[in-house]
Amino acid sequence: MINTTIFKICFLLVLIQISSAKWTKPRRLNILKHSSNHIRDDRCRQFKTFTQKVDHFGYVNMDTYQQRYTLNTDYWQSGKPIFFYAGNEGDIDLFCDNTGFMWDIAPLFDAMVVFAEHRYYGQSLPYGNQSYSKPEYTRYLTSGQALADYAYLLDNIRSSIKGAEQSPTVVFGGSYGGMLAAYFRMKYPHVVVGAHAASAPILQMTTPCESFSRIVTQDFQQESPQCVDIIRSSWGAVNRIAIAAGGLRRLSALFKLCRPLQSADELKNWLLDMYGNIAMVDYPYATSFLADLPAFPARVFCANVTASSFDTINDDEDIVRRIVQGTNVFFNYTGHTDCFDTGSQGSPSLGDLGWSYQSCSEFVMPMCSDGVNDMFEKQDWDFQAFSDMCFAAWSVRPRLEWPYIEYGGKNVTDLRYYSNIAFTNGNLDPWSSGGLRVTVAPTLPAILVTGGAHHLDLRAANKADPPSVLQVRQQIVALIETWIS
Amino acid sequence: MINTTIFKICFLLVLIQISSAKWTKPRRLNILKHSSNHIRDDRCRQFKTFTQKVDHFGYVNMDTYQQRYTLNTDYWQSGKPIFFYAGNEGDIDLFCDNTGFMWDIAPLFDAMVVFAEHRYYGQSLPYGNQSYSKPEYTRYLTSGQALADYAYLLDNIRSSIKGAEQSPTVVFGGSYGGMLAAYFRMKYPHVVVGAHAASAPILQMTTPCESFSRIVTQDFQQESPQCVDIIRSSWGAVNRIAIAAGGLRRLSALFKLCRPLQSADELKNWLLDMYGNIAMVDYPYATSFLADLPAFPARVFCANVTASSFDTINDDEDIVRRIVQGTNVFFNYTGHTDCFDTGSQGSPSLGDLGWSYQSCSEFVMPMCSDGVNDMFEKQDWDFQAFSDMCFAAWSVRPRLEWPYIEYGGKNVTDLRYYSNIAFTNGNLDPWSSGGLRVTVAPTLPAILVTGGAHHLDLRAANKADPPSVLQVRQQIVALIETWIS
Repeated sequence: MINTTIFKICFLLVLIQISSAKWTKPRRLNILKHSSNHIRDDRCRQFKTFTQKVDHFGYVNMDTYQQRYTLNTDYWQSGKPIFFYAGNEGDIDLFCDNTGFMWDIAPLFDAMVVFAEHRYYGQSLPYGNQSYSKPEYTRYLTSGQALADYAYLLDNIRSSIKGAEQSPTVVFGGSYGGMLAAYFRMKYPHVVVGAHAASAPILQMTTPCESFSRIVTQDFQQESPQCVDIIRSSWGAVNRIAIAAGGLRRLSALFKLCRPLQSADELKNWLLDMYGNIAMVDYPYATSFLADLPAFPARVFCANVTASSFDTINDDEDIVRRIVQGTNVFFNYTGHTDCFDTGSQGSPSLGDLGWSYQSCSEFVMPMCSDGVNDMFEKQDWDFQAFSDMCFAAWSVRPRLEWPYIEYGGKNVTDLRYYSNIAFTNGNLDPWSSGGLRVTVAPTLPAILVTGGAHHLDLRAANKADPPSVLQVRQQIVALIETWIS
Repeated sequence: MINTTIFKICFLLVLIQISSAKWTKPRRLNILKHSSNHIRDDRCRQFKTFTQKVDHFGYVNMDTYQQRYTLNTDYWQSGKPIFFYAGNEGDIDLFCDNTGFMWDIAPLFDAMVVFAEHRYYGQSLPYGNQSYSKPEYTRYLTSGQALADYAYLLDNIRSSIKGAEQSPTVVFGGSYGGMLAAYFRMKYPHVVVGAHAASAPILQMTTPCESFSRIVTQDFQQESPQCVDIIRSSWGAVNRIAIAAGGLRRLSALFKLCRPLQSADELKNWLLDMYGNIAMVDYPYATSFLADLPAFPARVFCANVTASSFDTINDDEDIVRRIVQGTNVFFNYTGHTDCFDTGSQGSPSLGDLGWSYQSCSEFVMPMCSDGVNDMFEKQDWDFQAFSDMCFAAWSVRPRLEWPYIEYGGKNVTDLRYYSNIAFTNGNLDPWSSGGLRVTVAPTLPAILVTGGAHHLDLRAANKADPPSVLQVRQQIVALIETWIS
């Protein structure tokens, strides 16, 4: 995701400031996008808006904005629960479309289903198209403001819908939305009775920076050790081809890129993101997130990469051709793509802008690779370079300590006073590196989804689901029953 | 407190806008002040400072300020608890001097004792003497920012003092500080294991507006029904004298005022505040808060008022003279005061400025009197007039719903998910009208202090303490033992 819009904005600057061996990119948690041929749920097209204060924490700025949300009462009965999705970094209908679990279990509970869009994403832009134009506008993009939005929205729903006044509310979320679901229950237990926080990397800010890369590597390793060897050797192959005369043109042609490469780093970062994304969406059935993908995309990727025997030992071009065969799985499984854009892996630009800002302020998630225990080139984490990039791009610098001051987790046992939060993490999910994977209190169960990629448990039931995720969903249903009783 | 500095600032405006029958004054919770002859505790003179961010909830304003606090380790042993006072609207040494309970029990727990000054009070002024000069500076005066200050300060203490890393912290506070103690545990249970919230009117924002006046009246009524009758009839007497030729001069002379009255309202508001303050400090022993006061000041006040038999029925001047005899108890018990200032009931002006701002933003506490069930003139609560005054003074308008959105209490049973907060309220304390007086969960005990005025339980042990407060303090000690275990 090196080439998101914000990186385009400060691209030259970044090129000047940062060596290729320093990791300064914010990693995107959200891997959803609108896919053209995805069947979209009509229940997610019924938008409402609610007038929110832009600044909940002060009284000087009296501006308001329209927060978008969806509200469905198909299954709801008066007094029965509200299921509330704490929207994360993207259009709310994306999450509404891809959180089938809530829809699956709503009839069991006669529940109302609400999906709330996060401020500064989708159409919930406090200052319209200018929302990202200057620090005076971006300053209200924080998790705390978003949580206050959710509290106000729920207060409004409860007081305006007859029969909802006493409806207990359960909050759900995946990825950053899972962090918000957990934080919402932590900070507003008088508003939500419990939370299902799926694949929520609430500890990612201090997790060893190589953890993410290691899990990605493990996912490919379990499919094919040979595949991992080829990926590991591909970086050198790319480097050697790139420095040869006409090498970048050759690489651009091999990868069928729409625009010629400006550097080998451009290609390598695009590939790096792809590996992370494949690990995140390594679901046991075909999906349509970043692109239309087969079931077990890591397996198919590796099958493509290892399909033919090595023609020549140490043939750089052969290695690269194998990787190209792999990328076709991720970027062109349907065969409809003529060329690939290294500047695009998914979501609309505003979503990326927002996450760039948030990872430059509250949620710095250090990333690196050691090149030994993972299949990547060695890349160090350079906080200072990252911070400098943030200041150049947004006129802000990260505050590393803040999430732990505000929400806890510096010492995980200190979280024991929170309650009614189910933390679920899949062992295939690289973001599980920052998940809460120890149960620190009986009412804060940490649940492992064996065979689960990024918030698999939040997705709609599927015949191909592993037994573990069925059990986890039953567990969540049982927990909700205790929370609302 | 009509004549606090802020009211001086907008005095003409207020006179024009507001009729005397509309209550638009913010009532001050804090009745502490520096008294010249009070013996001050040296442990409260050892100040430290900690660098805080002015804005914890955004990243644009990178200003910092020096927060003042006291830290005492006389009784502390490594690993043992930290007792933390959540400073409220005034100089921190005032609270340090007047919270003897913490000092009394610190040796029992080998506890460190910390008193943290609230931003914008005392010397913890984010923009120095300019802190109240414009909205861009006042905007960071909120309870949320203050709580984040406390969380950062504690994090710093824990990480910088060897042996304090794992020290469980118990937070204490009285009045607004009691609200903050409760809120601190509510919002930061990963930081503080429990809270003693004394006389914390967390529900005052929606308590019926006449409740405060009724409790004040009850306090005087239990001392002397005749006293209450005289007070009730005094308002008419003052009004009739005031409108007669030379009446204001006459009243000024009777009350020995330092400056001639500008209106009868000026006098009546001064008296109104006094009755509230007497009820708040109606302790069973002599104290030195607003002034040097005898034990049971309401009793002494009424004894003075009713000392002589009525000379003439309906003699307005006789009634006023009786009230003057009463005011001497409150304002001149030592006999050293030559004249009285209706513009002063206590704290330094900055404290009043701060509370004026806070009651104009987060903490609107409606006050009224019905003139039937209380001993005051009928005064309505006029939110719009109050809000207009706030806008004129501070360029902000109150947000009535915010404390309940943020901290809960709109429906008190929704507080049941919080834990380890002891809410104590004295039945003599008019602020108990907004206290949590029902136990909504086993770990949120609501404890009544029979015979207790404003946070009597937080004061140092005294031979004259009623048995009830001794029991309450034992109960708090037992609770702390469970919290830290």
